[in-house]
Amino acid sequence: MAVTETRFLRACHREPVDCTPVWFMRQAGRYMPEYRAIRDKYSLLEICSQPDLAAEVTLQPVRALGVDAAILFADILLPLAPMGIELEFAAGEGPVIGNPIRTAADVAALRRVEPRESLGHVLEAVRLVRRALDGQTPLIGFAGAPFTLASYIVEGGSSRHYVKTKQLMYTDPNAWHALMGKLACLVADYLVAQVQAGAQAVQLFDSWVGCLGPEDYREYVLPHSRLILREVSATGVPVIHFGTGTATLLPLMKEAGGDVIGLDWRTPLDWGWDTLGGDVGVQGNLDPAALFAPRPELERRVRAILDQAGGRPGHIFNLGHGILPETPVANVKAVVEMVHGNCWLPISDC
Amino acid sequence: MAVTETRFLRACHREPVDCTPVWFMRQAGRYMPEYRAIRDKYSLLEICSQPDLAAEVTLQPVRALGVDAAILFADILLPLAPMGIELEFAAGEGPVIGNPIRTAADVAALRRVEPRESLGHVLEAVRLVRRALDGQTPLIGFAGAPFTLASYIVEGGSSRHYVKTKQLMYTDPNAWHALMGKLACLVADYLVAQVQAGAQAVQLFDSWVGCLGPEDYREYVLPHSRLILREVSATGVPVIHFGTGTATLLPLMKEAGGDVIGLDWRTPLDWGWDTLGGDVGVQGNLDPAALFAPRPELERRVRAILDQAGGRPGHIFNLGHGILPETPVANVKAVVEMVHGNCWLPISDC
Repeated sequence: MAVTETRFLRACHREPVDCTPVWFMRQAGRYMPEYRAIRDKYSLLEICSQPDLAAEVTLQPVRALGVDAAILFADILLPLAPMGIELEFAAGEGPVIGNPIRTAADVAALRRVEPRESLGHVLEAVRLVRRALDGQTPLIGFAGAPFTLASYIVEGGSSRHYVKTKQLMYTDPNAWHALMGKLACLVADYLVAQVQAGAQAVQLFDSWVGCLGPEDYREYVLPHSRLILREVSATGVPVIHFGTGTATLLPLMKEAGGDVIGLDWRTPLDWGWDTLGGDVGVQGNLDPAALFAPRPELERRVRAILDQAGGRPGHIFNLGHGILPETPVANVKAVVEMVHGNCWLPISDC
Repeated sequence: MAVTETRFLRACHREPVDCTPVWFMRQAGRYMPEYRAIRDKYSLLEICSQPDLAAEVTLQPVRALGVDAAILFADILLPLAPMGIELEFAAGEGPVIGNPIRTAADVAALRRVEPRESLGHVLEAVRLVRRALDGQTPLIGFAGAPFTLASYIVEGGSSRHYVKTKQLMYTDPNAWHALMGKLACLVADYLVAQVQAGAQAVQLFDSWVGCLGPEDYREYVLPHSRLILREVSATGVPVIHFGTGTATLLPLMKEAGGDVIGLDWRTPLDWGWDTLGGDVGVQGNLDPAALFAPRPELERRVRAILDQAGGRPGHIFNLGHGILPETPVANVKAVVEMVHGNCWLPISDC
């Protein structure tokens, strides 16, 4: 494997690296002209369902930015349709679900999904990307975590207060756990299938779990995320476990599992890592809005994060959440250069 | 003063109380039929600008719920119009600002506001409410904190990522500090005027400050909030300093000031209070969504918060954020009864 391929994977295992690896959540997306050129012709779901398009979009930021990992282009909600959930992406509105799941009967009616059949196009994209990357850059697979998926399914789309989600949780915990159990089995199978198709690491996105306090996390989320993280870890690939607004959830997220825990920008990286303990890696945590700052201020912020990590093995540089649509590409590229310019070890020592 | 009047104020000063005082953010609002009856006839801004209507709406939850404090009915954005900001409340969309402030020149053009002139109707509502409460229940005044106000002014309304706000902060810190300075002077004057009109405590709402990490809070927010909190504290009334998503900001919010720090439900009350230290009170922190839970689950959650406070003087029971529009009134009333049923001291000892 090339140095660039080992750099990210070594960091996932908390092994010394020549310099901190860097990639970005939503590194393929609207902020890139190459991506917009494809999106002008195809819908989001069309890109996700055509392996050659998904592979092309996955590769765009690898070529343009020189990041240390590719992440499969897909949407966390892709597994919902095969379950029987009517999903649409309304223009400018985000996902809209025609038949939100709110009762035990709704949960019971959800179909069991075999990802190798229903999501075969995603697995084919994994294979195409691996072939194209040719050992130069590792590929990360991913899925939404059960809580975050459940929040869309129950609310019927994006949410601000997650009231219907919490209402189901508190009012009918059996239905809640049945829903989370179905999602956990599906997500575990889906991630394992991605690994078998060639993904060299996976990230579990629990993007909205920060709307819960620790007690609710422990009771309603942890067992389901743990099931997934155990099954995926058994494949031997490293697992990144990510959420936002998780300052008070970090010890429980670690308990649920993951080789690397993703931190958002509200959690100072050193504080977060100390809270987690030294036996996991951390990923993060530049504020995506910092990519709109003038270059010297951006550089100061990148440097501050690297200083907080202090060269401890196990840091993967990333944002605290996904790249925003209007982000200047040049600033994203500059961050890669800043991080790579910060060498910890001569390459020969790795 | 009646026992009920002293209960809340004693807790603000961390003095022993007969039982934990309780009130709710947005205790006057759409969830109450009495409020909807008035809103059917008047717009939000009409209610806020007519002191008799504002006073009536302020008193509704005091009568209906038996809470230990009234909070003036007003909107945090009322001070913006006199500054020269075009504010509208679009149906179903929240506040919309016609002339968002994005440059140093925009900031320079903002008018200096004398709250006693431009916001005299709010101060008149304070006087009417005090008279009607007749020493039975204390009245809390309030204002939005400079960061939260600035976020609306710069974004042009509500926001999800606060990119334009942060962009101004990072790109033109002088303009940012000029804006925050103007807002801080106005908010300080406005709160002092509310106290002089009769408010017996005030709350500073920095509702959206949790989108920042600690370093940004210290640099771009703290000095301005501190100026306000010092000026208001000099009047002698207790000050509550509130934000959401503030788990990593608590020590800095305390440094900025406040007799009582508001905690949201993501921060366990005992952890939050330990982090802050025993020399401030805490307010909170039931998840507003818990008011949609069945009664036994709601009771378990109320009890858990009271247990975490453990009868330490200085706890004011509240939600972690405002009451949501569809909340069942009976559950809100039940929480008041649960909290009041939890006695710490015989009344005669207070």
